Amino acid sequence: MNAIRQFAASKLFDRIIIGLILFTAALIGVEAFPQWMNPTLEHWFNLAHKAVLAAFIIEAAIKLLARMPRPWEYFKSGWNCFDFTLIVLSLLPIAAEFAMLGRVLRLLRVLRLINAYPELRLIVETLLRSIPSMFHITILMGLLFFIYAVLGFHLFHEHDPTHWRDLSYAVLTLFRIVTLEDWTDVMYKAMELSPFYAAYFVSFVIIGTFVVINLFIAVVINNLDE
Amino acid sequence: MNAIRQFAASKLFDRIIIGLILFTAALIGVEAFPQWMNPTLEHWFNLAHKAVLAAFIIEAAIKLLARMPRPWEYFKSGWNCFDFTLIVLSLLPIAAEFAMLGRVLRLLRVLRLINAYPELRLIVETLLRSIPSMFHITILMGLLFFIYAVLGFHLFHEHDPTHWRDLSYAVLTLFRIVTLEDWTDVMYKAMELSPFYAAYFVSFVIIGTFVVINLFIAVVINNLDE
Amino acid sequence: MNAIRQFAASKLFDRIIIGLILFTAALIGVEAFPQWMNPTLEHWFNLAHKAVLAAFIIEAAIKLLARMPRPWEYFKSGWNCFDFTLIVLSLLPIAAEFAMLGRVLRLLRVLRLINAYPELRLIVETLLRSIPSMFHITILMGLLFFIYAVLGFHLFHEHDPTHWRDLSYAVLTLFRIVTLEDWTDVMYKAMELSPFYAAYFVSFVIIGTFVVINLFIAVVINNLDE
Amino acid sequence: MNAIRQFAASKLFDRIIIGLILFTAALIGVEAFPQWMNPTLEHWFNLAHKAVLAAFIIEAAIKLLARMPRPWEYFKSGWNCFDFTLIVLSLLPIAAEFAMLGRVLRLLRVLRLINAYPELRLIVETLLRSIPSMFHITILMGLLFFIYAVLGFHLFHEHDPTHWRDLSYAVLTLFRIVTLEDWTDVMYKAMELSPFYAAYFVSFVIIGTFVVINLFIAVVINNLDE
Ligand code: NA
Ligand code: NA
Repeated sequence: MNAIRQFAASKLFDRIIIGLILFTAALIGVEAFPQWMNPTLEHWFNLAHKAVLAAFIIEAAIKLLARMPRPWEYFKSGWNCFDFTLIVLSLLPIAAEFAMLGRVLRLLRVLRLINAYPELRLIVETLLRSIPSMFHITILMGLLFFIYAVLGFHLFHEHDPTHWRDLSYAVLTLFRIVTLEDWTDVMYKAMELSPFYAAYFVSFVIIGTFVVINLFIAVVINNLDE
Repeated sequence: MNAIRQFAASKLFDRIIIGLILFTAALIGVEAFPQWMNPTLEHWFNLAHKAVLAAFIIEAAIKLLARMPRPWEYFKSGWNCFDFTLIVLSLLPIAAEFAMLGRVLRLLRVLRLINAYPELRLIVETLLRSIPSMFHITILMGLLFFIYAVLGFHLFHEHDPTHWRDLSYAVLTLFRIVTLEDWTDVMYKAMELSPFYAAYFVSFVIIGTFVVINLFIAVVINNLDE
Repeated sequence: MNAIRQFAASKLFDRIIIGLILFTAALIGVEAFPQWMNPTLEHWFNLAHKAVLAAFIIEAAIKLLARMPRPWEYFKSGWNCFDFTLIVLSLLPIAAEFAMLGRVLRLLRVLRLINAYPELRLIVETLLRSIPSMFHITILMGLLFFIYAVLGFHLFHEHDPTHWRDLSYAVLTLFRIVTLEDWTDVMYKAMELSPFYAAYFVSFVIIGTFVVINLFIAVVINNLDE
Repeated sequence: MNAIRQFAASKLFDRIIIGLILFTAALIGVEAFPQWMNPTLEHWFNLAHKAVLAAFIIEAAIKLLARMPRPWEYFKSGWNCFDFTLIVLSLLPIAAEFAMLGRVLRLLRVLRLINAYPELRLIVETLLRSIPSMFHITILMGLLFFIYAVLGFHLFHEHDPTHWRDLSYAVLTLFRIVTLEDWTDVMYKAMELSPFYAAYFVSFVIIGTFVVINLFIAVVINNLDE
């Protein structure tokens, strides 16, 4: 038992795990080049994926055993829960039935790299910690989107259903406008009804980008404070 | 009278109001999904809108009564004036005649959420307070737009009336160029006259974005000062 | 003479000048709405422009007289030189011959508003003063553009003459790419030769925006220092 | 020998080198205007390029001789190694065979200007020094791109092979999306499969630009610290 505990805490164990993650990432990457794939290769890759899954089960078992006689401490770490959930979902019969689900589970495993490197974990935590500072400005953004989307829907949905079919499409169109992506196409279409509708778009671009910039400033100030 | 005053100042009263605003927002949102709507539902929604309007009239009455014997203090708050105006306009016969006006009035009511949450109100006030710091740079921007728009109108309005028909279209086109939205389309059209007109667009993009960036910097510095 | 000096230094004199500039701006603006113009109106506008020119000549004369017996001090101010040059150019027979030149001269007169308002003058001076801090990074940008433009010309000018006809077009295309304006259109055209040319565009976008951002940072830091 | 050492350290020597670099840049620039070129001019330009190469060989020889009896100190400077490599590559028979390679070698010589001006060298060094501060966030960006690219490939490569043919095209498409360049074109194509795929693009735009902004902030903070 002590040997397991020592092995689970060793650098070698960490490196084997990182190696396995990089190996699975390489497999996943190569699979995304259809010109390189063929049935034989696919067969071997599937075997490799099963071997990696087996290795991750062993890893989880080692980590659980190392915490004996308090195995539940393993679940105190969010990352461990994440790993465990991926393993359990991979073993369910659905993962075997739906190829896409199996793929997504393998892909999510690559995220474990973040936990493996302390610097990456620190950055992700910093990014996540700056989210609350954006909370209220995001709600304000939501209010702005809601009002403009409802207004835009009623003004334009008959003339331009591609962009204003219903509230969800209107929100998507406004999101596109706030990224300044071909926003004039939508505007020129609406201006066929009346050139004064340009005011709707220009005002949204100005207010929207102004709020987005203030959202960025909030993040920057939050970062500078730390 | 004291009971009314206590009720008007209670958390319950605030929560009922917030609930009513969220309820009216939900109604407005669902109405913007034409695939979900049908005449029966529309009938019920109209009834609900009338009920909400009645509730808001009662709310205003309670707030007025709570300030007795000085009801005019109600109008000292900009938000109360805003609510009152919306109610009065909703009761006018025009709002019933023009469906769109009624819709806009109901939509504007959603803005009351800003007042209901102190954090939102604070952000909006901060945003509004950073506007004066942009005043002079906005005038400069206006001068830049005016000079380039008049020049662009005289240079290009015969060759490219879509973008340069008159001063208002020229300003709209320049606004689009400053957002960097497909600005080369306008430039390539003008370059059919002479390739040297590229200088007009490149100089405007450089000066325009430079002024916009300085406008942002003014807002940032203003925010950092606080 | 003393009366002239007092009048030239008075607020009334300043306000008359500002009024004249705004009046000329209004004339210029209305002229850029062809739907409102007709030969009669144009005739009156031309008379008004002549009257404004006469007024500006009188203004310059007053300012010169006010500085007697040292009229040359008038030319110590860059803005006075600017006004004087505009007047002289407007009186030359060429300005009457080429309508466009006359228009540009009248348009440039609107710039005098900057001098009329101390806050505007301050902002323009601040903007101009931040230009030297961008000098060396602009040269670096020029070097980057030169190397990519020459390379792009030799790689793509035969396949895609629209964007890479010669060095000047290549620089224009790269400027467009650095504003991220439809840069993929140019890339996809070049990728018809070889998909590896994507590296040319991706590397330019990354390096170019990186340098542009550092240029902005230089301006911001320069502004924060003051 | 002392004379050589003095000459190599003199301002005149530096200015001759800068003059030669600017001369070669001018030649390269003129060559990129096909309308100005003709066989005779091309002949003279090729002679000039050979003369410049000879001059740079003499320059390297002088610098080597000036360091006698320790000529290897010449190679301690990265810039000297860069010059030397360019000369050696230019003298190889391949450079004569492949016109393009010769061109690139001449073009890279223009980069020597950076070393010639201390201010430029300082800026480039500052830019390069801010790269390490972006290292970990770049890896995170890579992870984000990898996961979205593999997912995007499996979801869309059959329906939209232009953008999602294989992993490399998927990464290119995601890079384009993160620059906000016509990202909706790719999205609308994917939404033909299911409108819910909009979530894939909107989430990538939000997360991607959020990470990019934090990358910029890292650079800014790094710059402010110095
Ligand atoms: Na675009
Ligand atoms: Na864009």
